[in-house]
Amino acid sequence: MSAPLFFEDFREGDVVEYGDVTVSSQDIIAFAEKFDPQPFHLDDEAAKPVSGGLIASGWHGAALMLRVNCDAFLLRAALVESTKADPLSVEEISWIRPIRPGDRLRVRRTVLAARHTDQAGEVEFLFELVNQHGLVATRQRSALGILRRDAGAR
Amino acid sequence: MSAPLFFEDFREGDVVEYGDVTVSSQDIIAFAEKFDPQPFHLDDEAAKPVSGGLIASGWHGAALMLRVNCDAFLLRAALVESTKADPLSVEEISWIRPIRPGDRLRVRRTVLAARHTDQAGEVEFLFELVNQHGLVATRQRSALGILRRDAGAR
Repeated sequence: MSAPLFFEDFREGDVVEYGDVTVSSQDIIAFAEKFDPQPFHLDDEAAKPVSGGLIASGWHGAALMLRVNCDAFLLRAALVESTKADPLSVEEISWIRPIRPGDRLRVRRTVLAARHTDQAGEVEFLFELVNQHGLVATRQRSALGILRRDAGAR
Repeated sequence: MSAPLFFEDFREGDVVEYGDVTVSSQDIIAFAEKFDPQPFHLDDEAAKPVSGGLIASGWHGAALMLRVNCDAFLLRAALVESTKADPLSVEEISWIRPIRPGDRLRVRRTVLAARHTDQAGEVEFLFELVNQHGLVATRQRSALGILRRDAGAR
């Protein structure tokens, strides 16, 4: 595991891209069978008149984006322990374009704002799940509490 | 499949509860391995100091709520076809309390508002994922376009 990431590693205005996930029909259908069995997430033929073919559940896109974020930085971030169920609060989630079989997805992360007190900081991120055409499929704004690098020494 | 549900089937102020899903450690870990491999979603021991034991990924709770909604009414609702990736827009999603192994979950659905034009209506829902103690784990506000019953005859 690489070195932990602290508040100082996220600067307002920073934009980075990472991840490379290809989504298969099987992935889309497996998620839908478990969580979202609407016909346009299950069957390409049934989906044609509705959405021009099979498309992924919106929550599948959100979950894929989370996985890419975990691998890229979230597992290494010195998160502030929260009394909430999850340290990552979601301010907005929007489905802009469908995710279709064969799509290759990456995440573009923008630091919208970064504020801190003595020990901890809050970073407001924009995450965009971008497809192989450079178009945004899913968009999420989230704030994350992250420790300052020298918090332990204070 | 039961009869389709139209706009008129959702009245402002209606509150109904449905669903009965028990979440196991295995379910929580399987979702986390795929989408959210943070230690407190994967391992009970690692989770103890952070969250008092294993807790489900926030997106897992959202996905479970969607599944309960699909089974209870969403698959039968006469949804307005949307140009968006998904007919269900999410205005808010909040994780109020963790979901832990053995939790038994149901959904409480409140119709916050219902508006219509000639052919179609828009219904604004509050969905709450409620545990066996009657406490809300996950909260979601969503608007859904639903056809009026006699839209076809106009």
